[in-house]
Parts: sequence; C-alpha cells; structure tokens
Amino acid sequence: MDVNQLPFEKVTIVMGSQSDWPTLRNATTPLKELEVPFATAVVSAHRTPQRLVEFATRAREEGTEVIIAGAGGSAHLPGMIAAMTPLPVIGVPVESKFNTGLDSLLSIVQMPKGVAVATQAVGASGAFNAGLMAAQILSLADPELQQRLIDWRERQSAQVPFEVE
Amino acid sequence: MDVNQLPFEKVTIVMGSQSDWPTLRNATTPLKELEVPFATAVVSAHRTPQRLVEFATRAREEGTEVIIAGAGGSAHLPGMIAAMTPLPVIGVPVESKFNTGLDSLLSIVQMPKGVAVATQAVGASGAFNAGLMAAQILSLADPELQQRLIDWRERQSAQVPFEVE
Amino acid sequence: MDVNQLPFEKVTIVMGSQSDWPTLRNATTPLKELEVPFATAVVSAHRTPQRLVEFATRAREEGTEVIIAGAGGSAHLPGMIAAMTPLPVIGVPVESKFNTGLDSLLSIVQMPKGVAVATQAVGASGAFNAGLMAAQILSLADPELQQRLIDWRERQSAQVPFEVE
Amino acid sequence: MDVNQLPFEKVTIVMGSQSDWPTLRNATTPLKELEVPFATAVVSAHRTPQRLVEFATRAREEGTEVIIAGAGGSAHLPGMIAAMTPLPVIGVPVESKFNTGLDSLLSIVQMPKGVAVATQAVGASGAFNAGLMAAQILSLADPELQQRLIDWRERQSAQVPFEVE
Amino acid sequence: MDVNQLPFEKVTIVMGSQSDWPTLRNATTPLKELEVPFATAVVSAHRTPQRLVEFATRAREEGTEVIIAGAGGSAHLPGMIAAMTPLPVIGVPVESKFNTGLDSLLSIVQMPKGVAVATQAVGASGAFNAGLMAAQILSLADPELQQRLIDWRERQSAQVPFEVE
Amino acid sequence: MDVNQLPFEKVTIVMGSQSDWPTLRNATTPLKELEVPFATAVVSAHRTPQRLVEFATRAREEGTEVIIAGAGGSAHLPGMIAAMTPLPVIGVPVESKFNTGLDSLLSIVQMPKGVAVATQAVGASGAFNAGLMAAQILSLADPELQQRLIDWRERQSAQVPFEVE
Amino acid sequence: MDVNQLPFEKVTIVMGSQSDWPTLRNATTPLKELEVPFATAVVSAHRTPQRLVEFATRAREEGTEVIIAGAGGSAHLPGMIAAMTPLPVIGVPVESKFNTGLDSLLSIVQMPKGVAVATQAVGASGAFNAGLMAAQILSLADPELQQRLIDWRERQSAQVPFEVE
Amino acid sequence: MDVNQLPFEKVTIVMGSQSDWPTLRNATTPLKELEVPFATAVVSAHRTPQRLVEFATRAREEGTEVIIAGAGGSAHLPGMIAAMTPLPVIGVPVESKFNTGLDSLLSIVQMPKGVAVATQAVGASGAFNAGLMAAQILSLADPELQQRLIDWRERQSAQVPFEVE
Repeated sequence: MDVNQLPFEKVTIVMGSQSDWPTLRNATTPLKELEVPFATAVVSAHRTPQRLVEFATRAREEGTEVIIAGAGGSAHLPGMIAAMTPLPVIGVPVESKFNTGLDSLLSIVQMPKGVAVATQAVGASGAFNAGLMAAQILSLADPELQQRLIDWRERQSAQVPFEVE
Repeated sequence: MDVNQLPFEKVTIVMGSQSDWPTLRNATTPLKELEVPFATAVVSAHRTPQRLVEFATRAREEGTEVIIAGAGGSAHLPGMIAAMTPLPVIGVPVESKFNTGLDSLLSIVQMPKGVAVATQAVGASGAFNAGLMAAQILSLADPELQQRLIDWRERQSAQVPFEVE
Repeated sequence: MDVNQLPFEKVTIVMGSQSDWPTLRNATTPLKELEVPFATAVVSAHRTPQRLVEFATRAREEGTEVIIAGAGGSAHLPGMIAAMTPLPVIGVPVESKFNTGLDSLLSIVQMPKGVAVATQAVGASGAFNAGLMAAQILSLADPELQQRLIDWRERQSAQVPFEVE
Repeated sequence: MDVNQLPFEKVTIVMGSQSDWPTLRNATTPLKELEVPFATAVVSAHRTPQRLVEFATRAREEGTEVIIAGAGGSAHLPGMIAAMTPLPVIGVPVESKFNTGLDSLLSIVQMPKGVAVATQAVGASGAFNAGLMAAQILSLADPELQQRLIDWRERQSAQVPFEVE
Repeated sequence: MDVNQLPFEKVTIVMGSQSDWPTLRNATTPLKELEVPFATAVVSAHRTPQRLVEFATRAREEGTEVIIAGAGGSAHLPGMIAAMTPLPVIGVPVESKFNTGLDSLLSIVQMPKGVAVATQAVGASGAFNAGLMAAQILSLADPELQQRLIDWRERQSAQVPFEVE
Repeated sequence: MDVNQLPFEKVTIVMGSQSDWPTLRNATTPLKELEVPFATAVVSAHRTPQRLVEFATRAREEGTEVIIAGAGGSAHLPGMIAAMTPLPVIGVPVESKFNTGLDSLLSIVQMPKGVAVATQAVGASGAFNAGLMAAQILSLADPELQQRLIDWRERQSAQVPFEVE
Repeated sequence: MDVNQLPFEKVTIVMGSQSDWPTLRNATTPLKELEVPFATAVVSAHRTPQRLVEFATRAREEGTEVIIAGAGGSAHLPGMIAAMTPLPVIGVPVESKFNTGLDSLLSIVQMPKGVAVATQAVGASGAFNAGLMAAQILSLADPELQQRLIDWRERQSAQVPFEVE
Repeated sequence: MDVNQLPFEKVTIVMGSQSDWPTLRNATTPLKELEVPFATAVVSAHRTPQRLVEFATRAREEGTEVIIAGAGGSAHLPGMIAAMTPLPVIGVPVESKFNTGLDSLLSIVQMPKGVAVATQAVGASGAFNAGLMAAQILSLADPELQQRLIDWRERQSAQVPFEVE
C-alpha cells in the first residue's frame, strides 16, 4: 500500500466506496461556499482495513482537524476511525437498499460509551450537513469563518420564499 | 421569564425536562474528567418556546462554544437550537417508551439540509459520548485538552480486561 | 424579514418548503369544496426560525382559527407552532425518503404532554384529511358549513361504486 | 342493547375496553382543569359493533361536539366513529404490547382520504393531549375557555424549572 | 343505498376501493381453478359504513360461507366485517405506500381477543392465498373440492423446475 | 420415533416447544366453550423435522379438520405444515424477545403464493382467536356449532360494560 | 418426483424459486474465481416439501460439504434444510417487496437454539458473500484454496481506488 | 499492550465487553458437549482497536480455525475481524436496549460484498448456535466430530417431548 496516496486537509472526507461519492460530494458544497479546505479519499473499513488504520492514526499529525466519514449498510467506517483518533469524526449514513438506510444509520449512530461519532441524517442532506458541521466546529477558533457562517445562514433564511409555488 | 436564570458555560447542556437528567448527567462525566467547564439547564422546546429562543440566540455571545441538547419522543430541542445559533449542537436522543427511542432518534438525526445536529446514540451512552465529542471539538484549539483526551483514551483502552469475567 | 408577507386566513396552511406543496395542496381540495377560506405560506422551522415565531405568535390575532402545518423528515414545524399558539394545529407528515415518512410521522405525532398536534396520515391522503378536519372543527360554530360537510360526506358515500372495476 | 346507557357530553370520551381507562383517564385532566364538561363510556368496535354504530350516529344530535376515542392493537374505533359522524374525532393510540403500540398508532393515523382522525401520541401523553386538543377546538367559539387555555399554557411554561434536578 | 346491488356468493370478496382490485383479483385465480363460485364488490369501511353493516350482517343469510376482505393503510374492513358475522373472514393487506404495507398488515392482523381475522401476506400473494384458503375451508364439507385441491397442489409441486434458469 | 404418540382430533393444536404452551393454551378456551374437540402436541419444525413431516402428512387421514400451529422467532412450523396438508392451517405468532414478536409474525404471515396460513395476532389474543377461527370454520358444516357460536358472540357483546371502571 | 434430478457438488446452492436466481447467481462468482465446484437447483420449502426433505437428508452422503440456501419472504428454506443435515448451511435472504426483505432476513436469521444458519446480508451482496463464506469454510482443510483466498483478498484490497471518482 | 495475553484455540470466542459474556457463554455449551477446544477473550473494536488488529491478523497463524465474535449496538467487531482474516467468522448480535438488538443485528449482518460474516440470531440462542456452527464447520475435516454432532442432533430430537406441559 502506498500510503502517500492518502490525502489530508483541514477537513478530510473519506467514504467506503466510490459509489458513496454522489452522496458525499454534497459535503463539499458548504465547505467550498465557506472557504474551508478539504480533501477526499476512498477508505474501505472492510476491503482496506490497513488503509483505515493508516488513515485514522495519521490524520491528526498530518494536519486534519475534522474527519467526515460516510458509509452504507453495515457502515463501520466512521466508528472505526473514531476509535483510532482524538479528532471529531462526523458520520454520514449513505442510503442503502435495506429500509432506505436503516442499517447505515444504526451502524453509525449506536456507538458504545467511550467512542463518539457526530451522526448526520441519512443521504445527501446528511452529507451536506456534515460539511456544515465541520465548518461550525472549525469556526470556534476562526472568527472570520464564523462570520462567513453567520452570513451564510442569513442568506439561507432570506432565500426561503413565502409563496408555496 | 427571568432569563438571567439561564446558565452559560463553555459547554452548556440543556434538556427538555428534568426527567431527562438521569440520561444527560452521563454527559458530565467525561467533561469533569477532562476538566471542561459546563453548565446545565432545562429548556423545553414545547413548553417553554420563549426560553428556547432566548437560550439559542444568546448562547454564543454568552461564551458558550458547544451546546449539548437532549430530548425524548418528538424531540425538537436539538434541531430548533441548531436553527438559531452557529455553534455546533450535539443531540442526545433520550430513550422514550416508543420503540426504545426510535422517535427520539429520528426526530433529532433526520435534519434537513442546512441545519445540522451532531447526533449521538440513544440513551446514556449517547449522553456520555456527547460530553466526549464536546471535548474533542474544544480540543482542536486547546492542545492541553487534546493531550488530556489522548491520555484518557489510552487509559480507557488499557482498562479493557482480556478475561471475559 | 418583511413579516407583512405572511398571509393569514381562517385556515392557514404552512409548510417547511416549496417541495412540500405537491402534498399540502391536497389540503385545499376539501376547503374549496366546503367553501372555507384559506391562505398558504412557506414557513421553515429550521431555516426561518424567526418567521416561525412570528407566524405562530401572530396567527390568532390575525384571525386564523385553525392551522395546518406540513413537514417532512425531522418535521418540527407542526409541534413548534403548537407550542406558541392556543389554536388547534393539524399536522401533516410529508412522505420523506426514509422509510416512506416514518421520521416525519413520529416527529409530528409523538408530542409530549402539554402541547398537542392533530396528526393526519403520511402524504397526500393526510393532507386532504387535514383540510377536512379543519372544516369539521370550524363547522362546530357554523351550522351552514356543518350542513355542507354532511352533504359532502353523503356524496362521497354515494360515489363509491359497487363494482370492482 | 339499552342504548340509553350511552352517555353524551360536549366532549365524549370512548375507549375499546376498560383496560384502556388507565390511559384515557389522562384525557380528563385538562378537561377538568379547563372546565370542559365530558362523559366517558366503553364502546368496542369489534365486540360491540352495534353500540359503535349507535354511538357514532347519535353523538351529534345528543349534543356532543368533540369525540375522543382511544383503542389499542388493531385500533379501529376512532376511524370507524369518524366514518359515521361529521364531528371532529381525536384518536388516542393505547400502548399495546406489539412494539409499544406501533400497531395502535398506524391503525389510527393511516386513515384514507375522506375520513380524518386527529391522532395524538401513543399512550398517556397522547390521551392528555387529546383532552387539550378538544378544549382548543371548543375554545374557538368560547372566548372564556380560550382565555382559560391561554392562562393554562402560561402556567405550564412558568412551572418548567430551570434546574435539572 | 340500494342494497340489492350487494352481490353474495359462496365466497364473497370485498375490498375498500376499486384501487384494491389489481391486488384482490389474484384471489379469484385459485377459486376459478378449483371451481368455487364467488362474487366481488367494493365495500368501504370508512366511506360507506352503512354498506359495511348491511354487507356484514346479511352475508350469512344470503348464502355466503367465507368472506375475503382486502384493504390498505388503516385497513379496518376485514376486522369490522368479522365483528358482525360468525362466518370466517380472510383478510388481505393491500400494499400501501407506508413501509410497503406495514400499516395494512398490522391493522388487519392485530385483532383483539374475541374477533378473529385469518390474515394473509401483504399484496398479490396474500390475495392468491386468500382464495386458496377459502377453498381449503369449504373443502372440509365438500370431498370433491378437496380432491381437486389435492390434485391442484400436486400439479403445483410438479411444476416447480429443478433448473435455476 | 414412536409416531403413535402423535394425537389427532378435529382440531389439533401443535406448537414448536413447551415454552409456547402458556400462549397456545388460550386457543383451547373458545374450543372448550364451544364444545369443539381438540388435541395438543409439541412438534418442532427445526428440532423434530421427521415428526413434522409425519404430523402434517397424516393429519387429514387421522381425522383432523383444522390445524392450529404456534411458534416463535424464525417460526417455520405453520408454513411447513401448510406445505404438506390440504387442511386449513391457522398460525399463531408466539411473542418472542425480538421486537415483541415481529420475527414470529413475519415468518408466519409472509407465505408465498400457493401455500396459505390463516395468521392471527401475536401472542395470547391471537391464540384465543385461533381457537375461535377453528370453530368458525367447522361451524360451516355444523349448524349447532354455528348457533353456539352466534350465542357466544352475543354473550361476548352483552358482557362489555358501559362504564370505564 | 425423480430425485435423480437433484444435483450435488462440494457446494450446492439451492433457492426457493427461479425468481431467486438473479440474486443467488452472485454466489457463484467467488466460487468460480476460487475454483470451488458447485451445483445449483430449485428446491421450494413450501411448494416442494418432499424435494426439500430428499435434498436435505441426502446432501451429505452425496458429497456436499456446504449448502447455500436462498429464499425470500417467509423464507423457510435455509432453516428447514439446516434441521435435516449436519452440514453447515449458509442462508441468503432474497430481497422481497416487504420492507426490502425484512421478512426474509428475520425468517432466516432468527433460528431457535439447536439449529444454526450462517446468515448473510439481504440480496446480491449477501449471495456473493455466501459463496465466499463457503470457500472460507472449505479452505480450512484445503491449504491451496486458502492460499487462493488470501490472494483474492489481497487483490480485492489493492483494487480499491484512492480517488472518489 | 501485552499481546501475549491474547488466547488462541481451534475456536476462539471474542466479545466487545465483559457485559457480553452472559450471552456469549452460551456458545461454549455445544463446544463443550462436542469436545471442541476453545478460548475466550474480550476484544473491543472501539476501545481497543490495536488489540482488534493484533487478534484478527494473528488468529490464523496461532492455530485458530473458526472465530466467534459477539457484540451489541453499533456492533463492528465481527465485521472488522472478518476484514482482516481469511478464517470464517461467526457473528453473534448481543441484545441491546434499542429495539431488542435491531442495531446489533443489522450492524453485523449487512456486510458489503467481499467480506462475509456468518450471522446468528440475536442473543443467547444465536450464541449457542454460533458454537454449533463452529463445530459443524470443523466437522467437515473431522469425521469423529461429525459423528458426535449427528448423535447430538439425534439426542436433541429425541428429547423434544410430545406433551405440551
């Protein structure tokens, strides 16, 4: 394994498979709009367990501050990363076929006492909110980012129409 | 309403009712162990909507950096707070009678695109992990806290016995 | 926020997003047939919390008697409105992707003791029945409306065919 | 059947069995506190279908304005009453053994287009809120009741403590 | 209501709406193949409660021996018929949108002690089996029908191929 | 295996284990009250597959007319008996630990096209109704039994009190 | 029944119906890649119970070492085979319409104490993994197969891309 | 970490926590009765990820042939072990509070294509069957064990009583 292929940025977004990208790419929208640097990579907990260990144990020293991890079905990726890093890990349940992602959601959110994952909603909205939550977390130490975030929220409110169609 | 009764600390823990305290008190354990200051209060989204607005809109200026919000059933508290503050909000689904908290979990986690809640597991483990996640978030700007967190995790690992009984 | 954009009628129908309109428009069918005046607006609990407060606290004095509120996913709109008005609030769970609206249904119906929502079925049938229920409520003080309602029910019964195709 | 045994009041509360009374008695609390007259009776959709027909078809002419109907399991009572009266029917899913009332909830709430039930939460909270909703409905034509309701809500808010224990 | 429009045969198949016919027509296949006479009609528990009472209370004296009743959502038809006749009632949960018929299934099968419905699987297979079960019941007093049934089962077994495609 | 230990009566009640008896004994109550002869035995689909085959293939020639089969969990007993006899088989899902019998219910009711089980509610009520349904089926060819059944139903209705406590 | 039509190989794959083949054919992919001989056949627990008995009781003496059994809905096939052979049986829940295979999954996995089925995920992935698990089991006594398996796993890991699209 | 504390036997049983032992000890019953050597240890995927890697990667060379892994909630242990060894892994979902183990079951069984877990029922029965399945797997290369297994099954069948109490 050429671990140098692993990218790291302030926010690093990983997912169990390329098929998760259409969901996870939604996480990049708020990050771009809020000017938060991010990187993306495929890390499969089950098919590439060594890459998982490498990624999770190196992320902090490589400069990552928040990890977004998305997976579907028996979605072990977010929880296993969280087990191997002190960084906050945001979990995104990718919509699977089984009950529209009930398995993904429960596998990610029902973590035992001692290892936490900040779980978002199933699917694209959850991925978008994962990006937003990463920005909210980083904004605590970055007043300019926090201001951009406040402005972004105001624009979001202002853009909600009054008319129903 | 005497809003001066609302407490604010670096981590402020709110819950929908006093009956949620046996669950939410678990959030204070890692905060105490990691020396993170916190405050607690009852804020009911449904019975005290004004208090909710007051709390959510004032939290940032009062110095809170991370909010932990726990509620059960039709658990609107975490999401409604998140709608009114740029601070990261960690949601704790309190175990309700209906399917051991399925309603609490879904009400908290299934947020729409644009307003995020960092949802934890249902019940006491989720509350504990909410405290832990708050510390992980704050540790990004506090190297000493991060070191305490890393040490805490190592102790946690070391304390897992090998024997099954 | 130009709150004058908020419409109010005897029955006011609000929804979390324009994407809920294809569902909620079904509420207008019985209202039109029974000649009950209504207005419609988008009010998002999460993206426009100020508009929510404005709408809920002003509805009664503006002449609204029954509120119909529809939302999907983590559907906080009906319950939060109900928390801020003494008017009867009828909730419509909009079909979401997650288990065909299980999240919407539970978020709306599982209200805590002290704040009630008159929940209808998930989706278009529930929206239609929300309009009907609003008319039934208003008919208690309006004998002519009650007669129209009784006639409407009789026509509905008479129109059910005996043949299966 | 001695139908004269059927009681009727402004609010009439019926339930499928005496075993539902510990749940449904919660509906009487807000009615008493708000001074709304009510009556109670057992009407089983399945074991006493004639009584059901008698009750539902006579309720309006006997002076009932709002019906509260509670049942558990395959809970047909609220929907069948709603099919036979233009009065608003509030449904209370009684907690059954099967998934803590999932069957009761779905049987009551998932009504087809054309016959509406104002469904409340499963169990005691839902019963309490059924009484409250009945009062809210009646208050539209009774300003004094509405004032009592507004006062009741304010007292409820004021009684929520700030302290968690 | 012209109750003479209600058809009655040895097996009478009723359903809540014409939209249920594509499901319920599957019940007629085994009845035709086994030469059991049947009739079909729309009887809506909610939209035509009088027709329901008429049908259920007259079925036995009109010569019906087994009733097949299909409905979806808050499916009260089979249980309400069973409450008003001593004849065996076979229930078919029609697939609804909500969790592919979970509501239909639970509303039909979770009957209280004292009134039974012979519930089949959700959807077309359940409807087919309802026809089969009706024939099995009638065959107890009709040796020729029982022989046709045994032959039918043997043909069914023989027609299962060994090859997977 | 001494197959002569298998009992057969007009109604034969079998169950997967002695632990199912507290549930299935409820099936005997209406049979006794309606004077329908019955026998009982343990037949485990999984632990005694030969006994299952023996029972199912011999039941008809031994004089059984209706079979009641109860099982819990992965409850294969009713469906496998139905696969090997033309007699009507009534299935009783015994309440298991997993979601209060969701597994038992689905394993019994979701039969494929071509082999039917007359499924009752989960647990004791379902068992009681299984006995009742067996009597209803047998009454089609036994006018005296049908009369007893009609009388039984009338007594059941008459015994429902009007008062809630 | 011409039982000579039943095929037997080291791994024998059976399924309840030809309609299960698109799912079960996925089990053959890893078997082919790992050079494990297999046979396939339709064996319906419900429509061909005799074939089921024949298959299950003869499999071991015919040289089968591992059985893969797939079925949907009330999926009794894997469990009933397991009841009649000491060979390891791997169960594949075929995706049914009801909650995307919740019934199939629970019917297969919730086996009682004393008869085990090695259950895989619902659908195509589960079928693929059933083939893989069969190879893993056989590899314990076949070092060359185990080496091929280890190589296969390494290739699988190496083929996971780092890039998300 | 003193990895020499990790025990290895032909069957090695691991679990996420000592609290899982009351469930997992049931796996030892059939292993003892069938004279299969086993070892037990606590290996937590989340709290001791290094121990997990150590255990999973060394198990084969240390002589383990079958691994039994039990865990509850967000139960990642069986799947993560399976990702790091070619040995067959049998998964036991420990009953959690959330819907009696729905989360445990789905986290274990819904594995992606390429990494298989042989999942058993939730709780004590599943643990017992895990031990049985391990013996069945090992018996393929051990004729004496297979004979003991066949005898064990026969005794199990013979011990099922005919009488219901």
